[in-house]
Parts: sequence; structure tokens; C-alpha cells
Amino acid sequence: MNWHKTTLEISTHGKGLHDITESVRAQLRAWGVHEGMCFLFLPHTSASLVLSENWDPSARADLETFMERLVPEGADWYTHDLEGRDDATSHIRAMLTDTSLTVPVDNGELSLGSWQGIYLFEQRARPHRRKVLMRIIDVE
Amino acid sequence: MNWHKTTLEISTHGKGLHDITESVRAQLRAWGVHEGMCFLFLPHTSASLVLSENWDPSARADLETFMERLVPEGADWYTHDLEGRDDATSHIRAMLTDTSLTVPVDNGELSLGSWQGIYLFEQRARPHRRKVLMRIIDVE
Amino acid sequence: MNWHKTTLEISTHGKGLHDITESVRAQLRAWGVHEGMCFLFLPHTSASLVLSENWDPSARADLETFMERLVPEGADWYTHDLEGRDDATSHIRAMLTDTSLTVPVDNGELSLGSWQGIYLFEQRARPHRRKVLMRIIDVE
Repeated sequence: MNWHKTTLEISTHGKGLHDITESVRAQLRAWGVHEGMCFLFLPHTSASLVLSENWDPSARADLETFMERLVPEGADWYTHDLEGRDDATSHIRAMLTDTSLTVPVDNGELSLGSWQGIYLFEQRARPHRRKVLMRIIDVE
Repeated sequence: MNWHKTTLEISTHGKGLHDITESVRAQLRAWGVHEGMCFLFLPHTSASLVLSENWDPSARADLETFMERLVPEGADWYTHDLEGRDDATSHIRAMLTDTSLTVPVDNGELSLGSWQGIYLFEQRARPHRRKVLMRIIDVE
Repeated sequence: MNWHKTTLEISTHGKGLHDITESVRAQLRAWGVHEGMCFLFLPHTSASLVLSENWDPSARADLETFMERLVPEGADWYTHDLEGRDDATSHIRAMLTDTSLTVPVDNGELSLGSWQGIYLFEQRARPHRRKVLMRIIDVE
């Protein structure tokens, strides 16, 4: 069994889904991973990790619009607003999605579906520098 | 450490929660897994994996109804409808639930709660053939 | 590779987010884990595990309020109410959050973000005794 680890640094430019699939794939190839499990972990509470449709941008637009409608900025009942109108919403949206993803690796590649990409879902309006902890158990 | 892998093939007959617990259990027994972790991954973006109540069918009916109400088909603001009225909804519902599940294995069995089952939550109206990637790390 | 396992017992006193970060950390230290992955699994269907903001209590209050508003008790369309007004809601809320969490361990500590805590999100009104299955793969 081999173990690999790194921290991916992702720059986000405001709210929305940022495709990080290629960053993860490039790291897998650099390590020469053969087969096992890939664990991604986001050590932030105002963004999340999402696996979703990677072909038609309208699919992602609808995911973003849905979240704006379900958990709007500045709702009158929020009490957590120290960091602005996007404060409570960002934590709630993170809770409704995922902080970690676990993806099988086969033949050196992520075993994603054909139309499946890995996205960092930024919930903050301002640009952020996010970390994604990447860990690999290679069973070969 | 031992490593096992397979792909479960699940036929879904339209929307709703499909119990796959026995398919996973049967595979564990066939391999003679002793103790470790079971990783399930769904390489699709219009369905998801859910751990939920396995005894009273009304619990599952309410989960399904909730999703129909929260993310209805054909809302007027959807832009992603190439594959029909269930297109945007299916991706949004997948985002709100899980694409992967990680379950401990002890004494050769999934360590689920007494009333906990593993479900594939199909969000497409038409029947589909879905894959569930199953990976096991057996630590014995 | 080393494998560790235990079951944490958590007493909840009604609905809401219960911080279990220190219980997990204390167990890691007791085992002297060095580096690897920590898997937490909740064998219950009316509670969940959430990683969220650990500094300002108002962030957690808003998460709880959001769930009360999105999935209210006793909605007129629920059919699953054998165990009371919190029956359907508790399963729906569990589906929208997480049943398992996977967190990297580095230098003997959980690699959580600075403001990130691990919470058991109880959805039942009455006090419960909950189990959290904790599994560690230590790669050193």
C-alpha cells in the first residue's frame, strides 16, 4: 500500500462552481497512482465540494440559481452576519452539500462518470484562496 | 490488507428510492470480507445514494415527496432542460444528497443501524441502468 | 498500516448541533495515531454529522433555524408520523446532511480548518443516546 498527500490551492473569484477536476487528475498522474481511493477534504465552512454535470454550463447555472433561491442572502431572520450578507447563507449552503468527496481510482484515473466533474462550490462573494486536502491510498 | 472491487448494476424503474442493501451485503459475503471500510460511489449526476429508514415505507414516501416539492419538475426558471422536465431537478437533487457512502464493516457485515438501509435515489422518470462502484479495504 | 476502531457514545438533549470534536480528538490522541484517514459513521436515520463553523454560536443557530423552516415539524402532507411530529422531518433532514464524514489526520491531529468543528445534528425532540462509529487507517 502506498500513501500520497498534498494540498491543492484553488483561487475562487466569487460565488459559483469552480471545476477542479483537472487539478486532481494532474496530481494523480504526477504521483503515478495505480488503483485505490482518492479522498478530497475542504477545510472551510463557507464553500463545499460537489460532483456534478460537466458538459452543459446551464446545468451548473441552475445549481447556483437554486441555492440563491433556497438560501438567499440577507434573509431577515439570519442572526449570523458578522462577515456580511453572505455569512449565514454560506454556512447553510455548505451544510446542504459536501465537505469531503471519496472517489475510486482505477488504472491511474479517477473513476468518475462520463459527464461528472469535481467542483469547488464557492459561497462567498469576494475572491478566496481555498485549500483542498488530497489523500490517496494506492493499494498496488 | 486486502482490496476488493466490483461494479454493482442496478436497474431503476423511474423515480424513487431503490433498496440496494442486499446487493451490497451479498457481495461482501461472496468476498468473505472480515473488517474494514466499504466505499460506494455512484458515477452518475442524476441520481444519488442515501442511507435512510428501512422499515416503514411511509418514511421513504415522505423523502420522495419532499424532493418533489423542494425541487419540482419544470420550474419556470430552469435553463437546463435538454433531456426533459426532469433534467435540472435531477442534478439539483443529486447535489443535495450524496454521490458516495462510506460504511464500516465489522465481523463480515455492514455496520448499519438496525433501521438503516442503503438506497439508490433515482431522479429520472424513465428506467435507467445505474452503476455503483463498490470498493473494500479489508484490514485483516 | 494500523487500524483503530471504537464507538463513541453521545448523549443529545433534544434537537440541535452537538459539538463532538473533542471526543474525536481525545480518541485519536489515546491511540497515538500519526497520519492517515479518520472515518466517522452514524448508524441512525434521524440525526446526522455536520462539519461547520465552530466559533460564533449564531452560525449554528442559523443552521438550526434554517432546517426548522425548510423541513418544519408536522407539515400537513407528511404520512410518516408513527413516532411523532418530528418523525418525517428527522429523516428528511438527515438525508439533506451527512451520515458519514471522512477527515484527514496529519501529525496526530484532525486536519480540520481553523473554524471547523464536527457536530452531531440531533433531529429528535427527546434526548437520545447516539453512537458514532470511529475508524482510523494510520498509514505510518
